[in-house]
Amino acid sequence: MRRIGIDIGGTQLRVAAFEQDGTLVKKEAMPNDHNLGPAGNLERLARAIEGWDTSYEGVGIGCPGPLDFAMGRILNPPNLPGWEGFDIARWFEDRLGCRAVLNNDANVAGLAEALLGAGKGLDSVVYLTVSTGVGAAYVLGGRIVGGSHSCAAEVFNMVVADRPSVRPGMNAGALEDQASGTAIGRMASERLGMQVDAAQVFALRREGNEVACEVVDDAATMLARGVCNINCVVDPDMFVFGGSVALYNPDFVDLVHEKACELVLNHESLTFALAQCGGDAGLMGAALLV
Amino acid sequence: MRRIGIDIGGTQLRVAAFEQDGTLVKKEAMPNDHNLGPAGNLERLARAIEGWDTSYEGVGIGCPGPLDFAMGRILNPPNLPGWEGFDIARWFEDRLGCRAVLNNDANVAGLAEALLGAGKGLDSVVYLTVSTGVGAAYVLGGRIVGGSHSCAAEVFNMVVADRPSVRPGMNAGALEDQASGTAIGRMASERLGMQVDAAQVFALRREGNEVACEVVDDAATMLARGVCNINCVVDPDMFVFGGSVALYNPDFVDLVHEKACELVLNHESLTFALAQCGGDAGLMGAALLV
Repeated sequence: MRRIGIDIGGTQLRVAAFEQDGTLVKKEAMPNDHNLGPAGNLERLARAIEGWDTSYEGVGIGCPGPLDFAMGRILNPPNLPGWEGFDIARWFEDRLGCRAVLNNDANVAGLAEALLGAGKGLDSVVYLTVSTGVGAAYVLGGRIVGGSHSCAAEVFNMVVADRPSVRPGMNAGALEDQASGTAIGRMASERLGMQVDAAQVFALRREGNEVACEVVDDAATMLARGVCNINCVVDPDMFVFGGSVALYNPDFVDLVHEKACELVLNHESLTFALAQCGGDAGLMGAALLV
Repeated sequence: MRRIGIDIGGTQLRVAAFEQDGTLVKKEAMPNDHNLGPAGNLERLARAIEGWDTSYEGVGIGCPGPLDFAMGRILNPPNLPGWEGFDIARWFEDRLGCRAVLNNDANVAGLAEALLGAGKGLDSVVYLTVSTGVGAAYVLGGRIVGGSHSCAAEVFNMVVADRPSVRPGMNAGALEDQASGTAIGRMASERLGMQVDAAQVFALRREGNEVACEVVDDAATMLARGVCNINCVVDPDMFVFGGSVALYNPDFVDLVHEKACELVLNHESLTFALAQCGGDAGLMGAALLV
């Protein structure tokens, strides 16, 4: 039977129906209207699903964290103001009369990659997304390892260096503050004395700009430490890289691989791949939750 | 039916028979005679088992790493000279005509703690042993997560600080070189200008020696980073601490907990416990592999 995948974002809401094998059947997107609140927005999604007039097994929901997976509840995600504490899985179960399962956006994208994308057929996959932030998913035996407090694969806060704290609430030397797109922009801006974002830093690097080369090299070193530390805990079959910084700069991912090989025990078999599911990974992975 | 657990050590070989519920039935120990090589030593274990005249389901073997779990093969453990590349699981299968399963010493001790010790009844447990080195095990749903290359839970090589390399083959800033008993002894010896081991450093600390206090505090900081980084990947129900440094110094474990709470997202639910299975954990866990 078909499955429904829902992707909740701060600016956009998306919903799709998939066949069991991941084939897309229907898809719809709409803006997240902050005036409507969670119930008003979700009602629009429910009506879209009803409009398709299709039978389905259940609904999977991907949403920015922090969440409580087991309770199917949103906690206090910074880019979903007004959604705090909302029992989103229960809402869909009551409204649509089917099973609903919640997980976070990085985990569902990782699940799609592990089951239908770059990691298809493998037993264990770590998905790392490098864009504005650094997110991850750990998929073992076809299932997301969510952790006891919905905190597994929250690698953004991993300590990888002795560096001063950048943001309140984040660890000093946290992976995200040393290796995300935001971090690359911040570090280059400080050294160049002008505001640049990650895309501009990578463009400057291609022109041979020394500061840009050093900043990207440093971010790769930090990400390699992150890969090493993840590998020290779960030793997956494959690391799959997603997110704009990784996908637009495959040579950056190669550099991370080179540096990580210097740090991991099983360096001869350390396997990296780029994400393959594209923009629908979140929807596809959400549907796979059911 | 009963199960046999075998614990291979550089100086001692141990074997025991357990009931399904973990009750010890028989136990025997003998020195590892390096003149006999692996087959000669294992033959003595096989005869001990036969002498018990008991039926059993299979044999589980705990052994110092590195190992290849899937192949049941010893690779090149530094404290088992002459055992390199030995197909130990196959040897027992051929000799005793039963199933034999191999895993490393930290993983089997962790399995015992997770199933029958401090973590009994929990879904996910990370076992951390702090003694000469730093070892770990990750047990999820009653099973050791061994990794794709038998390298899961090899946290000793995790990068937790920007510090110079201490030993060849280990990462600069590796957890084991910053927080093991050996590291505590080394760091204190350097600063005190005399040779001390970890037990002496903890004794000096109890007397209020400033250097000893600082060294132990630093090791606790590094171990807290290790806990944070492991938690960022798998977020277990509980961390169980074993090994002489932890078990003889529960206040050290408390200090690590206090520091780790400053680093982890789910600090309100970060749960530490001391290992409960005692000296037979390795034997008990080995038997649980079957």
